[in-house]
Amino acid sequence: MAKNVLIYGGAGQLGKAVAEQFLRISSTQWSVTSVDFANSIDGARSIILQGDVEQDITNVSETFKAEEAGFDAVICVAGGWAGGGVKSHGIFAGVDKMWKFNVQSAVASSHLAANFLRPGGLVVLTGAAAALGPTPGMVAYGITKAATHHLVSSLASPGSGLPEGSSVLAILPITLDTATNRQGMPDANFDDWTPLDVVGQLLVGWAQDPAGRPASGSLIKLITKDKNTEFIPA
Amino acid sequence: MAKNVLIYGGAGQLGKAVAEQFLRISSTQWSVTSVDFANSIDGARSIILQGDVEQDITNVSETFKAEEAGFDAVICVAGGWAGGGVKSHGIFAGVDKMWKFNVQSAVASSHLAANFLRPGGLVVLTGAAAALGPTPGMVAYGITKAATHHLVSSLASPGSGLPEGSSVLAILPITLDTATNRQGMPDANFDDWTPLDVVGQLLVGWAQDPAGRPASGSLIKLITKDKNTEFIPA
Repeated sequence: MAKNVLIYGGAGQLGKAVAEQFLRISSTQWSVTSVDFANSIDGARSIILQGDVEQDITNVSETFKAEEAGFDAVICVAGGWAGGGVKSHGIFAGVDKMWKFNVQSAVASSHLAANFLRPGGLVVLTGAAAALGPTPGMVAYGITKAATHHLVSSLASPGSGLPEGSSVLAILPITLDTATNRQGMPDANFDDWTPLDVVGQLLVGWAQDPAGRPASGSLIKLITKDKNTEFIPA
Repeated sequence: MAKNVLIYGGAGQLGKAVAEQFLRISSTQWSVTSVDFANSIDGARSIILQGDVEQDITNVSETFKAEEAGFDAVICVAGGWAGGGVKSHGIFAGVDKMWKFNVQSAVASSHLAANFLRPGGLVVLTGAAAALGPTPGMVAYGITKAATHHLVSSLASPGSGLPEGSSVLAILPITLDTATNRQGMPDANFDDWTPLDVVGQLLVGWAQDPAGRPASGSLIKLITKDKNTEFIPA
């Protein structure tokens, strides 16, 4: 039977890289479905969101129900970053934006996983290594990623609604090597940033091999130094 | 000089009880300002919110600026509870509601504190003991309270924007002895619920006596057993 992966945020820089890694696997045939505001890469099926998360997920759910769809992996790589402390009035816009980008996408992915993940499946959300500690200079980002980390702990607990034997993990990047980040921080040492294909390969590995997954509920930091990436449980 | 306390959510059941305890102190004269959607108790000044947090806080800030207001304590006791896991479609409405009730109020209080707290002042947010662990049956509540706990850690860190010497604490109730909770859980043992006046007295004590406050950044669980309440750092 073909394996199916749902990539929430599959049209983003990380999402496309993850989709690419899944489509590359020849030993197992993966069918890739992206859910995002734009199209993902060729070879992936793209479901386009309109903007109202509740209505969007109603529509997506009806489509999946009609198809009797089941996923072996649901991966949320949607999200974003915003800086700023609480003193600036911009905190309200920042919090609102981070809420929509980071928390609504994580909740939507979790909801879809609870309803369409196959037994023994994998759920991966995107947290942030920075949010393991205080983030006074990027409060909105920090609180939404802390919320995501907490969501992972709840999804990994009995009674979460996920099917039997499923694994819930979070990847906690420090800095991903994206075009956006290179533009924003042109003088940084890119050798210490995590390449997107490395993230994709990690996720494919977890999806392919249930025995190789960290314990459900784990938050896995992606720590890159001199072009070498380690995956360290928080 | 008169001391000023700002109670965000001062018209709620807990907010009124806290306002009452501040107004009772005769040794120091406290002036109580409530910010909420309705009036607080007699003796408190009530500033009424309209519903759009960003516009509301702009208005409140302009008022305070014009008055050259300064607060010795900013206390957020606004918030609410919602049950439900991620599988139900109701998760989206639940998350949206909890976000507005719990996170927006905590962020608004933090923003007002960063701009109007006096040096050495006190900020108290309301977390939840339950959110120290997974909350699969009340996901929206859990993630928003985890966000609040993270906000406390950021506010207590250097560079948060709060004035020098300020203390940031969270109270983490288990179950408060409110009329609403008695209606919702009529068969519970009320002797194990935390009375609102006990919470108010705790907050007044912290506000009055900087030396008696726990370390800034502490999350303080309110644990009541047989009518006796202990305050335990998480």
